[in-house]
Amino acid sequence: MDYYSNQISRLIEEFSCLPGIGAKSAARLAFHLIHMPEEDVRRLADTMVEARHNVRYCKECCTLTDQEVCPICKSSDRDHRTIMVVENTRDLAAYEKTGKYKGVYHVLHGAISPMVGIGPEDIRLKELIRRLEKDVDEVIIATNSSLEGETTAMYISKLIKPIGVKVSRIASGVPVGGDLEYIDEVTLLRALDGRVEL
Amino acid sequence: MDYYSNQISRLIEEFSCLPGIGAKSAARLAFHLIHMPEEDVRRLADTMVEARHNVRYCKECCTLTDQEVCPICKSSDRDHRTIMVVENTRDLAAYEKTGKYKGVYHVLHGAISPMVGIGPEDIRLKELIRRLEKDVDEVIIATNSSLEGETTAMYISKLIKPIGVKVSRIASGVPVGGDLEYIDEVTLLRALDGRVEL
Repeated sequence: MDYYSNQISRLIEEFSCLPGIGAKSAARLAFHLIHMPEEDVRRLADTMVEARHNVRYCKECCTLTDQEVCPICKSSDRDHRTIMVVENTRDLAAYEKTGKYKGVYHVLHGAISPMVGIGPEDIRLKELIRRLEKDVDEVIIATNSSLEGETTAMYISKLIKPIGVKVSRIASGVPVGGDLEYIDEVTLLRALDGRVEL
Repeated sequence: MDYYSNQISRLIEEFSCLPGIGAKSAARLAFHLIHMPEEDVRRLADTMVEARHNVRYCKECCTLTDQEVCPICKSSDRDHRTIMVVENTRDLAAYEKTGKYKGVYHVLHGAISPMVGIGPEDIRLKELIRRLEKDVDEVIIATNSSLEGETTAMYISKLIKPIGVKVSRIASGVPVGGDLEYIDEVTLLRALDGRVEL
């Protein structure tokens, strides 16, 4: 990397540490930056530092927010007796984009994965149990449909059922618009098991 | 984008303005940043601002560098009588990586492209002509093998030949390891025209 000047090389190196950015993209980004107006670079840099400094976990649902309590938990329009459990803030945003879910969320920030040493105590489960002390009608588990997500869902349901709160899991099956031909066997069987009467 | 807190949304927006980064990658980057140690984010931000502030064009060859004259132009190990003309600093780095080229470079920062309104006066051609006032044996044109690159090469050769300096163009043909079956017709014909006696 000594084909470039020191500062460009350092910039490329920094960029290559980011997820999904390889050596070529890092170089492209670095040169783009060098050609950007200086005040734009400064604004980008400030935004990064500020966001990192100010963003914290919501005291209620543990999502990432720049306030003490996130707008969803603060809202009186939401049904605070229904909690959807998701793995991360991006999954929360995915359901928010549908605009149809009116309950609140709980963000785990991970999923149980014994393979990489992530146990139940490493995700925000204690915080979820604490929330169940208030009146809660239903906990909807919306972790991913991966091995880790399923393990986490099972664990949570076993943990919550004794408390007497209704626990449900989002349906898994053929995605809407999906072509059966291209869908894996496990999903096909899951769709069959989960069939609903018409 | 109001599914996230203000500061996260702003960060995602800033990232999506960078080349090759769409909405999903921008969100991924933003959340990665939020989870990075604060001092790492600060260092990244500082590197960006510093690089943008300090990197300038080399007084000799116009490449991007943080010194007045770049290390290649300063070096006495290089043959200053051979100048390779490239479109940008990344192309320079590509030839530097081969480790075999011992001459110096000239970086145009673009190629002539009437379609998007880039004319000869918009690239660093005047600077190249000025360098030819010193003793120069050969100018090797290594612009891309695209329409713009070829146009630029033609233009430069017409400009330089009357000065009496030898002008050459890097060979174009089948890439090493290339499978003829998958190579476009223009390249195949170019390779045929440029055949060399064995």
